[in-house]
Amino acid sequence: MEPIQVIDIRQHILIDNQNLADEIRNQLKKEELFMLNLMASPGAGKTSIILETIRRMKSEYRMGIVEGDIESIVDAEKIDAEGIPVVQIHTGGACHLDAPMIKKALESMDAAAFDLLIIENIGNLVCPAEFDTGAALKVMILSVPEGDDKTLKYPLMFSVCDALIINKIDYLPDPGFDMNVLEKRVRVLNPNIKIFPVSCRLGQGLDSWCNWLRAEIEHYRNSDE
Amino acid sequence: MEPIQVIDIRQHILIDNQNLADEIRNQLKKEELFMLNLMASPGAGKTSIILETIRRMKSEYRMGIVEGDIESIVDAEKIDAEGIPVVQIHTGGACHLDAPMIKKALESMDAAAFDLLIIENIGNLVCPAEFDTGAALKVMILSVPEGDDKTLKYPLMFSVCDALIINKIDYLPDPGFDMNVLEKRVRVLNPNIKIFPVSCRLGQGLDSWCNWLRAEIEHYRNSDE
Repeated sequence: MEPIQVIDIRQHILIDNQNLADEIRNQLKKEELFMLNLMASPGAGKTSIILETIRRMKSEYRMGIVEGDIESIVDAEKIDAEGIPVVQIHTGGACHLDAPMIKKALESMDAAAFDLLIIENIGNLVCPAEFDTGAALKVMILSVPEGDDKTLKYPLMFSVCDALIINKIDYLPDPGFDMNVLEKRVRVLNPNIKIFPVSCRLGQGLDSWCNWLRAEIEHYRNSDE
Repeated sequence: MEPIQVIDIRQHILIDNQNLADEIRNQLKKEELFMLNLMASPGAGKTSIILETIRRMKSEYRMGIVEGDIESIVDAEKIDAEGIPVVQIHTGGACHLDAPMIKKALESMDAAAFDLLIIENIGNLVCPAEFDTGAALKVMILSVPEGDDKTLKYPLMFSVCDALIINKIDYLPDPGFDMNVLEKRVRVLNPNIKIFPVSCRLGQGLDSWCNWLRAEIEHYRNSDE
């Protein structure tokens, strides 16, 4: 079965997107603004992870959130309730955020007022992996109930991310999820990815995740690239 | 925040897709071949539902499965192990199946050898809702761990489907999922949708789902449209 002709259109879009993402990344580096792109399936816990991260880090960093959704503002309202500035992007049907959308979001904010921006991408393990947003780091969440075979079906997402948060470990033991099997499958695709098993419900593993993120921000600020 | 220019390209693709989907649907009606498009998030249980449906219905219908995946054949192998013919579509990156892909799949099969085809779409709640495949019925699965707020974020999927299978009810009670809340939210979008709470692990609710599917196939065969 061959791919269909839409792929060519996609390639042009992807190249334009990559160029703009690189521009955004260079600009943010000059402004010492660290941006993280958080991706996952629907319901894996993106908003919960962002809320837990805000609670642990907002006293140290001037944080802002870019919420991506097809429509609705339910997640943005939860962020707003934490007293953190949030910009809502409505994609109007598109299944991922891309660099032009992030550029618009950044233009609507005062970049100098932030140290740390987190993008909550659309719930989707496919296209968000392909569209660079200009973020310094890419992080994905996989939740235990999704199963340990997702690396086989969505390998690009696992390949492009710097860190993998395994959320909902409170569901373990689960016959569809073996942590050792999952780790082995992930390491084949991405030997250096950092893995953080966490439970937002129980508050487990989140300090390790935030400590790693602090170290990454420190490294970003001190690097010349 | 306005939608970006990729939307226009998308509109052209969608119109071409719809025309081909209508052609496919007319052709399948002439051949009395009933095709169902099954959609869900990654890990919601599409393959499990298909396997349970096969076990309950293969003695009555000549079944075939069209498996959509970015890559891998893990799901197709599970279907094959049930002795049911399966065609694997690899989308090579695209996050949904569309009518041209289904046309190719149908051309590779002997349509006269089947009564019931089930399409397992790519794990994604966004684009598969937009791309008609030519199937007679659209069915989605939502799993309990995904949460009861998915109707707010992916309303098109809930709007276009004829039936909603709520899988993994063995996870209930779950603080993120209230069945009454979910049903109310779904009915706002789609008052006539059929809802089937099921558990593939416990074997619950699957007979109701299959009985409804049998009635739909019967109705399809006896209708003139």
